[in-house]
Amino acid sequence: MPGPPPFPPAPTWAPLVDRALAEDLGTGDVTSAAVLPPDLLLNTVIEAREPLVVCGLPLVEAVFRAVDPALATSPAVSEGASVPAGQVLLEVRGAARSVLAAERTALNFLGRMCGVASFTRRHVEAVVGTGVAIVDTRKTLPGFRSLDKYAVAIGGGTNHRAGLYDAILIKDNHVAAAGGVGAAVKAARANAAPHLQVQVEVESLEDAETAIEAGADLLLLDNRSAEELREIAARCRERIPLEATGGVTLANLRELAETGIHRISIGALTHSAPQADVALEVDSREVAGS
Amino acid sequence: MPGPPPFPPAPTWAPLVDRALAEDLGTGDVTSAAVLPPDLLLNTVIEAREPLVVCGLPLVEAVFRAVDPALATSPAVSEGASVPAGQVLLEVRGAARSVLAAERTALNFLGRMCGVASFTRRHVEAVVGTGVAIVDTRKTLPGFRSLDKYAVAIGGGTNHRAGLYDAILIKDNHVAAAGGVGAAVKAARANAAPHLQVQVEVESLEDAETAIEAGADLLLLDNRSAEELREIAARCRERIPLEATGGVTLANLRELAETGIHRISIGALTHSAPQADVALEVDSREVAGS
Amino acid sequence: MPGPPPFPPAPTWAPLVDRALAEDLGTGDVTSAAVLPPDLLLNTVIEAREPLVVCGLPLVEAVFRAVDPALATSPAVSEGASVPAGQVLLEVRGAARSVLAAERTALNFLGRMCGVASFTRRHVEAVVGTGVAIVDTRKTLPGFRSLDKYAVAIGGGTNHRAGLYDAILIKDNHVAAAGGVGAAVKAARANAAPHLQVQVEVESLEDAETAIEAGADLLLLDNRSAEELREIAARCRERIPLEATGGVTLANLRELAETGIHRISIGALTHSAPQADVALEVDSREVAGS
Amino acid sequence: MPGPPPFPPAPTWAPLVDRALAEDLGTGDVTSAAVLPPDLLLNTVIEAREPLVVCGLPLVEAVFRAVDPALATSPAVSEGASVPAGQVLLEVRGAARSVLAAERTALNFLGRMCGVASFTRRHVEAVVGTGVAIVDTRKTLPGFRSLDKYAVAIGGGTNHRAGLYDAILIKDNHVAAAGGVGAAVKAARANAAPHLQVQVEVESLEDAETAIEAGADLLLLDNRSAEELREIAARCRERIPLEATGGVTLANLRELAETGIHRISIGALTHSAPQADVALEVDSREVAGS
Amino acid sequence: MPGPPPFPPAPTWAPLVDRALAEDLGTGDVTSAAVLPPDLLLNTVIEAREPLVVCGLPLVEAVFRAVDPALATSPAVSEGASVPAGQVLLEVRGAARSVLAAERTALNFLGRMCGVASFTRRHVEAVVGTGVAIVDTRKTLPGFRSLDKYAVAIGGGTNHRAGLYDAILIKDNHVAAAGGVGAAVKAARANAAPHLQVQVEVESLEDAETAIEAGADLLLLDNRSAEELREIAARCRERIPLEATGGVTLANLRELAETGIHRISIGALTHSAPQADVALEVDSREVAGS
Amino acid sequence: MPGPPPFPPAPTWAPLVDRALAEDLGTGDVTSAAVLPPDLLLNTVIEAREPLVVCGLPLVEAVFRAVDPALATSPAVSEGASVPAGQVLLEVRGAARSVLAAERTALNFLGRMCGVASFTRRHVEAVVGTGVAIVDTRKTLPGFRSLDKYAVAIGGGTNHRAGLYDAILIKDNHVAAAGGVGAAVKAARANAAPHLQVQVEVESLEDAETAIEAGADLLLLDNRSAEELREIAARCRERIPLEATGGVTLANLRELAETGIHRISIGALTHSAPQADVALEVDSREVAGS
Repeated sequence: MPGPPPFPPAPTWAPLVDRALAEDLGTGDVTSAAVLPPDLLLNTVIEAREPLVVCGLPLVEAVFRAVDPALATSPAVSEGASVPAGQVLLEVRGAARSVLAAERTALNFLGRMCGVASFTRRHVEAVVGTGVAIVDTRKTLPGFRSLDKYAVAIGGGTNHRAGLYDAILIKDNHVAAAGGVGAAVKAARANAAPHLQVQVEVESLEDAETAIEAGADLLLLDNRSAEELREIAARCRERIPLEATGGVTLANLRELAETGIHRISIGALTHSAPQADVALEVDSREVAGS
Repeated sequence: MPGPPPFPPAPTWAPLVDRALAEDLGTGDVTSAAVLPPDLLLNTVIEAREPLVVCGLPLVEAVFRAVDPALATSPAVSEGASVPAGQVLLEVRGAARSVLAAERTALNFLGRMCGVASFTRRHVEAVVGTGVAIVDTRKTLPGFRSLDKYAVAIGGGTNHRAGLYDAILIKDNHVAAAGGVGAAVKAARANAAPHLQVQVEVESLEDAETAIEAGADLLLLDNRSAEELREIAARCRERIPLEATGGVTLANLRELAETGIHRISIGALTHSAPQADVALEVDSREVAGS
Repeated sequence: MPGPPPFPPAPTWAPLVDRALAEDLGTGDVTSAAVLPPDLLLNTVIEAREPLVVCGLPLVEAVFRAVDPALATSPAVSEGASVPAGQVLLEVRGAARSVLAAERTALNFLGRMCGVASFTRRHVEAVVGTGVAIVDTRKTLPGFRSLDKYAVAIGGGTNHRAGLYDAILIKDNHVAAAGGVGAAVKAARANAAPHLQVQVEVESLEDAETAIEAGADLLLLDNRSAEELREIAARCRERIPLEATGGVTLANLRELAETGIHRISIGALTHSAPQADVALEVDSREVAGS
Repeated sequence: MPGPPPFPPAPTWAPLVDRALAEDLGTGDVTSAAVLPPDLLLNTVIEAREPLVVCGLPLVEAVFRAVDPALATSPAVSEGASVPAGQVLLEVRGAARSVLAAERTALNFLGRMCGVASFTRRHVEAVVGTGVAIVDTRKTLPGFRSLDKYAVAIGGGTNHRAGLYDAILIKDNHVAAAGGVGAAVKAARANAAPHLQVQVEVESLEDAETAIEAGADLLLLDNRSAEELREIAARCRERIPLEATGGVTLANLRELAETGIHRISIGALTHSAPQADVALEVDSREVAGS
Repeated sequence: MPGPPPFPPAPTWAPLVDRALAEDLGTGDVTSAAVLPPDLLLNTVIEAREPLVVCGLPLVEAVFRAVDPALATSPAVSEGASVPAGQVLLEVRGAARSVLAAERTALNFLGRMCGVASFTRRHVEAVVGTGVAIVDTRKTLPGFRSLDKYAVAIGGGTNHRAGLYDAILIKDNHVAAAGGVGAAVKAARANAAPHLQVQVEVESLEDAETAIEAGADLLLLDNRSAEELREIAARCRERIPLEATGGVTLANLRELAETGIHRISIGALTHSAPQADVALEVDSREVAGS
Repeated sequence: MPGPPPFPPAPTWAPLVDRALAEDLGTGDVTSAAVLPPDLLLNTVIEAREPLVVCGLPLVEAVFRAVDPALATSPAVSEGASVPAGQVLLEVRGAARSVLAAERTALNFLGRMCGVASFTRRHVEAVVGTGVAIVDTRKTLPGFRSLDKYAVAIGGGTNHRAGLYDAILIKDNHVAAAGGVGAAVKAARANAAPHLQVQVEVESLEDAETAIEAGADLLLLDNRSAEELREIAARCRERIPLEATGGVTLANLRELAETGIHRISIGALTHSAPQADVALEVDSREVAGS
């Protein structure tokens, strides 16, 4: 059994942490400065306020450390765990002013990442037993590509290409410009590096046949009905991977998954996942040195 | 009548555009390189695929220009306009490879910003006639603070403090550390710069009275029932602004708005707004110089 | 009465603080490392060495915190206060090596910001009673746009457009290219977003009339004599805001302000404000833990 | 004869150019977009509006290229040249929209750099024949250290240490902490890398003698009268370099320079140099392709 | 058969490209500006000057595009190909000034990446048939971690942990602090996330046994002789992966690989790989438009 | 005697330190977090493991301080010193977790910089007595230009131009485009700023004569045999500086240096210097506060 996916490399998200802290802290936390004694220490926990899939704890720890290297953090659960409401996710201990300065930024990241992972998990569970993979898209939040893709993987989803650079995906506009599906696929095969997958959007069974003959590696079926998917799958599923996309919701997902296709890609996994509800609670207070 | 809010200053979002393009383009768009002739020009439009509130066109133009300064863009509607499905939002013309390289990043930003503005508008419309302001929170996406706050304003919402630095907000943890609501508000009044608003979370009518006497500028009422809000409003609404928050949904929003309070702040405006559906369509093709 | 303007958002200046510290600290403060014991603590104050308008304290606090989060800072006066020589502006306490490492960078920012605010205040006071607004320009220091504009506002000045993006200003070159004042203003009205102000530079009374008819929102009068200004103001001041600019000094400012125009914009507010004289003084020394 | 100093390496100023353009351009130049045809070309020149010392042309060229790589620039004079009002400094040719988008940012940099160079030159000329060097300080604009130091050198000044890292300068606070001038200098000699200069501020002739004996490399005389400087110079000038600083103006500079000291350092060179007056003029217009 | 490893995500290297171009171009290429006509076009090729393993072409294309988006590039071979001296690797066509401005930066990256890949390949070939994996270390060039790791993989090597964050590696210092190998491994098992590998450095057979019992996932054998490796391998190789490191050269690599261990990690792969010799040649010249 | 070259300004390398730490630390050092107590202090030393030329200690100190400002560092030798194996270079004291988190990044920089300095020193020593200068090239590591050039200088080498911007170097491609050596040199003389050196690559004695007459400042002789160099030197060495380059190794360096030329430039100084072997050793451990 493979472990969880590796956390994305820091240069893909460290600048985002810096920006997020800068935009919240600005010239400083005026509330803490006015109300809290500087030597007040807190023992706190971050909790789930609803059932969720845990995702993003290493980043949350990095946020706290970026505010104050002396804060101590300790995860209470593993990435990818499915936990009930009330579950403690992380313990944080240290200067009250530091903990509260980092709190909102940490929770904003955590809520986002748990949200994407949890929303993905719901989709994955909806297709259990069909063998269909739930796949993400490039409809990620700007600046969050590596984090969003990781959260999908933690949720049990499958990552599509990372960007425009690591796979060929010929869409309707490319097809029109190239003069047809066959010509487009052949151009891709001829001109692109051999290790790149050539995926192509097709609108009909005829296009599908042409694409397969021209050497496509995967067919993308955009906005097809369950009926249409079933027909194409019946004819092609043994010869090439089939991916449905467009107009997919939790309501119709199971039906689409049972048409015989192999993958379903869903932009909403990353562009419309609801935030997961997480909160920081204070366990106890003490004054430093006392 | 005031115009729309000013678009946020570029240093607050320009690095995000750079990162978003870098993560999508990477070493280059392999599909266009393989399939599209370099001298192909496109006339394209970005359209709404559902009714939405327009938000973010200046940023979208900046994305296209960042990819290729020679792309020509022309907005077809104004920021803040409420448009039907099918409405053209922006025209983009230029090299096909450039337009398609920028497309996804531009749409990801636009879908986010229209999404927040539209979701806010729905909340604003739900309270029409009550005089209650719909207010955002610090539960914005990391790195998107200025864009999210602008989108809320475009949607008709009111911006709460920008961050920890521009208003005092005394929450339960601060109250506990300071030894009570009265002590906390007095400490804030004594220690903070005089122009800073002092807002304080209160849990009871008694706390509310204490806070008002100690000099608070606004009371935050977290997770109170409509009944509780009504009672506090009856006693305090002439003396101090009252803001409800916590557990607010479109379903109960109207009821809460009719309790006599002045403002309702809602984290979901920015943390859980569904993406608006926008797409780029090709109007016509031509070859450069021909 | 409105409070002071909000401090600019951190992403507009935080990178400048990082750079300023990097260029001064480089590989480290060799003097302190050689001469000062690491556990020496200082109580210090930053003082005005001449009468000035206070501006920039929140940024100064951020500089000290960036060097050492354990430094304690406490403002002694408010932004915008007019203080005499000798006034303590800020108290700073902590490790001597940290305080002295941040000193020069903090003072360089503070001297700049107080300088702009104080220089603006002198201009504002020179026109007291005329109702004329003192307005800044885009002649700010590269990288300091948001800080310079804030300092002008703190000094009592009025902020012109933030940049090329938030207002139309048709200058002589645009007029020539567009084929006259009337054509230029009409093009602007027709092509630009409706919420954008259309300002236009005019050289004569005739141009002024044309601009007003074409729908301009403000007339810019560049390098006009008091006599010329008086003449135009007599004819137009009830119909459109008039702004004089060019060749304005403290010596002729009052005369220009009494011509009947509404605003005077002055590049020198930000491009030639003398640095305000501020200094850090050591109040007392002690050794940590002793 | 040595050539002019080398222009500072790009990583010391390239980010500042990016920021300056971002803060002025934001989401785009709305005036040019509304009023200027996209194919309009301009031949323009940047001129001196007052006599000045030329400084910063390579940076100005970089600003224009950053906006549009197709703009052609051609310097008309050399760095360091002393030119009269009306002198053409640089020719710029290309798309009107690009030239005007870069204009203000380019001029803001150029005005600053010529300003510092010209102001320095005035000080250098005031001490001609005395052999005294005019020296800068660390009172540079935040983020402009390398540009400010270069401009001083172009003006004929001498660069003091670049920052806290490349020379020891023991000030009054260090002396007090170390227990006297002798102890401080000895600590510096003992603990610092051998190639580092040890400079020390002295307040009396007695201190001067102590510092020389302890091995100082230069004495800094802060806020001394011409009389005091003369006395110290008479006794020490053959044994150690002497640098005066503090309270220096163009009015008293010559008198101080004739006291026998070797160097005078002046913060105002970089913190209060008036902006030089430079402007961009349009020579001719044409439409591309015509 | 798996394809080549994916090229690292752009945010891990795009800032390095920006810096490299900034440090070479500075204020501009004075040679081209003085000697080359602006409309001169070049057809050029990048060639191998010695036999090498191709690595880094996508990055090289990104460098050329960063200088001038209009440059056309076309790879002539695939990543990972082993090519003879004289082989064309990439064709580049466009403005001479742009090609020559990017040339050195492009070649510096390419020479580095081909150098690491080629040096790795030599090590991999030296152990052919032994089943031993050649593994990299964290001794990468600062800022090049993702590129160096990719180049090792292209060369046929195996990537060790990416950094301190994605695997536990208990070295001698950790062992000493924890009170022995057993205690250290048990602490790691108890405190670390369950998916993290626990690797531990052992100095003796006895330590090896203790580590295995305590639950280690891999044993690191630093600076052991072939004899020692053989002995440990004989006893442990069926129970746990064994990795030798330290003092490995091409001269003794085969002998070490035949001791029965599973992996050999070699810092020199990335810290001392000789640059591969690559050069840009001009095929033909023409003047634009002619 | 001049001191060592100044350390490069921080903005040229500070971002590289940030990136290097980010790529190694990522979400945190999982080994130390699992195995080391937080209050463990270490006294450590960085040692040379082979004879080397010391280079980069100020940068190493900056790396440790960037991880934890409370770490104390103390250099034991000077930049440029030639030390034996076993020599302590730097002492580092502080929290074990901090020291070990910074260790690898610090050593990676130090090994690189000592490597370049040491490799340069070997070349310099090989030509002792000939008066020939050993010169670097632009074949530096991307992002390391200022550090690599400094290391060459520390090793006793001479720095060539910093980049494309600070000297004219006319290579074969420029010569061909300009229509011959004479035309190219004359164009450079006519068009370039007067302070810029004009260097030109020549392939024959005839070219050399032409270049000298046209006003070249230095001749570059690429890939010439010792015999050819001797011939050209005999005729030209009194009239113009001569620099050989191409195909230079430690084996043939002395022979080339004795041909009468003035300088030899060698790309391998920076592109293929072997890493110097440096390591961090723990001297003693203690628990904080005990």
